[in-house]
Amino acid sequence: MIVESNTVRFDAIALDGGATLAPVDVAYETYGALNAAKTNAILILHAFSGDAHAAGIRHETGKPGWWDNMIGPGKAFDTNQYFIICSNVLGGCRGTTGPSSINPATGCPYAMGFPVITIGDMVRLQGMLIDWFGIERLLSVSGGSMGGMQALEWAVAYPERVVSAIPIACTTRHSAQQIAFNEVGRQAIMADPDWNEGNYYSGNPPARGLAVARMVGHITYMSDDSMREKFGRRLRGKENFTFAFDDVDFEVESYLRYRGSQFVNRFDANSYLYITKAMDYFDLTNGHGSLAAALGRTEARFLVISFSSDWLYPSYQSQEIVRALRARNCDVAYVELQSNYGHDSFLVDVAEQTDLVRGFLASTFEKAR
Amino acid sequence: MIVESNTVRFDAIALDGGATLAPVDVAYETYGALNAAKTNAILILHAFSGDAHAAGIRHETGKPGWWDNMIGPGKAFDTNQYFIICSNVLGGCRGTTGPSSINPATGCPYAMGFPVITIGDMVRLQGMLIDWFGIERLLSVSGGSMGGMQALEWAVAYPERVVSAIPIACTTRHSAQQIAFNEVGRQAIMADPDWNEGNYYSGNPPARGLAVARMVGHITYMSDDSMREKFGRRLRGKENFTFAFDDVDFEVESYLRYRGSQFVNRFDANSYLYITKAMDYFDLTNGHGSLAAALGRTEARFLVISFSSDWLYPSYQSQEIVRALRARNCDVAYVELQSNYGHDSFLVDVAEQTDLVRGFLASTFEKAR
Repeated sequence: MIVESNTVRFDAIALDGGATLAPVDVAYETYGALNAAKTNAILILHAFSGDAHAAGIRHETGKPGWWDNMIGPGKAFDTNQYFIICSNVLGGCRGTTGPSSINPATGCPYAMGFPVITIGDMVRLQGMLIDWFGIERLLSVSGGSMGGMQALEWAVAYPERVVSAIPIACTTRHSAQQIAFNEVGRQAIMADPDWNEGNYYSGNPPARGLAVARMVGHITYMSDDSMREKFGRRLRGKENFTFAFDDVDFEVESYLRYRGSQFVNRFDANSYLYITKAMDYFDLTNGHGSLAAALGRTEARFLVISFSSDWLYPSYQSQEIVRALRARNCDVAYVELQSNYGHDSFLVDVAEQTDLVRGFLASTFEKAR
Repeated sequence: MIVESNTVRFDAIALDGGATLAPVDVAYETYGALNAAKTNAILILHAFSGDAHAAGIRHETGKPGWWDNMIGPGKAFDTNQYFIICSNVLGGCRGTTGPSSINPATGCPYAMGFPVITIGDMVRLQGMLIDWFGIERLLSVSGGSMGGMQALEWAVAYPERVVSAIPIACTTRHSAQQIAFNEVGRQAIMADPDWNEGNYYSGNPPARGLAVARMVGHITYMSDDSMREKFGRRLRGKENFTFAFDDVDFEVESYLRYRGSQFVNRFDANSYLYITKAMDYFDLTNGHGSLAAALGRTEARFLVISFSSDWLYPSYQSQEIVRALRARNCDVAYVELQSNYGHDSFLVDVAEQTDLVRGFLASTFEKAR
């Protein structure tokens, strides 16, 4: 499945923080075909560092999408049956307008002049994209991590447009610990002199700070168990400790340094700041009084999935969603899948997840006919 | 209890890495009185960022010791009965020789010319201090976190000198995840241009990098629960989000920034590198084949304590110690205490810990008479 990325430009979007952004571009990909009644569209929502390239092989790079194991012919999100849309989030750096985009008022990148955005803003922009496709209702909205938060926001903000939602490994609001990990990443970036108050686009990006932020992230994405299995205390290409600081001792050190340095090539540091801030601000109860009241607006069916070893978005957070939905007599199925891969499970350990999603979508599509 | 710190200088110490350090200073404090038979001495071992000031009020600063709630008249380590010694570890920055000390060969601070040290080296230097006191056997060795690792090393390296050991919230060797968190701290420091390959003693220390390292540390010392109880999603002195980056939104952000910046005033960044490296290298099985073989050398009694919410040094690591000791028919008591405070529990939630330690020391002292 060879795919390509497209971009659509909208005149303007009004933001939760009060600002208006004009114009605004959205990068997106689609897989499969929209049926004549436009009833088979599914919106896939990406996690923090994801992008519009969710599936297939991109023509220019030869790289598979970030959820290619879940989206395609015969896969969980079956492109033989459904029309799949995925777009890069507002504030991102992979085609959708974000802090690295040119501010038409100045002719320079927005940098820290970009307005602070919310998960609600991201979803509003996705809504404009769905309008542009002429799609009234989405058969489903789904994603893991920040993608799951967007799915929840969709169900509450546009209850009439969402037939079903599949939030995975996510929460209705960040805990103090989740905010704390994001704050460490932000501080690591802003501590790098190359960050330069965000004005680095004509010079060097804050590569060292961004790499440290990503290293912290990677630890939180894995589990104690999966790190033990993958690295243990194995040394990197040597039999004994170096007793030095100019070389690497442990495999896990080498892995983190590599992943940190690679991230710098594909992600914008200011986008890191804005998107983590949006995640921290997200609180589904805002303006609704309670979680049950917020979710009481929706008539969507829900499939909620969490993973046993995910300590960044622990199962208790998914169970809060389920309890609130049940309190409102909503149609909700919940499964905690057993996996050792920690938060990364929704990306890498997809066999059972595939069965659940496939069955849920089939019955949803059947009921919606 | 007004206390003061003392320093003793030794000619030289031979290190596990092959180097010799000469001379070497040890900063220490003592509380209580050594009995005539010298049978009531207990060595307290500090954690990563601790120092010799474990108890009492220091005359110059008015500050209480880091384990003042555990050490003193009538407390767990009862200074009416026992003679308590605590020294700053080798590689530290609070009076004992470390990378910030003057290298007599150059007249300048060692900086990264300081030899890489191990937990074994720290314990060897403590042994020299105990010799200097003329003490043959220690009634007990005890500490939490890295202090617990030193207690284990004592029992294995000097089995004839240790009557009992109380390792708390620790491990016989770091997991990949524990190494990973330490590596993030090291990389944050070394990414700061002010680190300058370790040569910052005549200029500015790498304050931003060290602060980020400490922020990560603080997250790992607390639990998800204790962060929720202490901070939740409470905003810092405001009712609404700032929608800006130049101010702080959440209390937890403010707390982490404050703790990070405070740490810079009391800790040396190069000591951070050396001591975390020593912790990562530590493996009690080294040279012994197995944990049971290593611990089989000791005839000490053990009290092993872990805390239910400690995810940095999880209970399963303490249970490994207990299993190995039981396999060798050693005298070992183990308790997992219920506490919400995460790894910090051994410092802050000491009521039950006090009862356990008091009883264990009393019966140990009774048997050893």
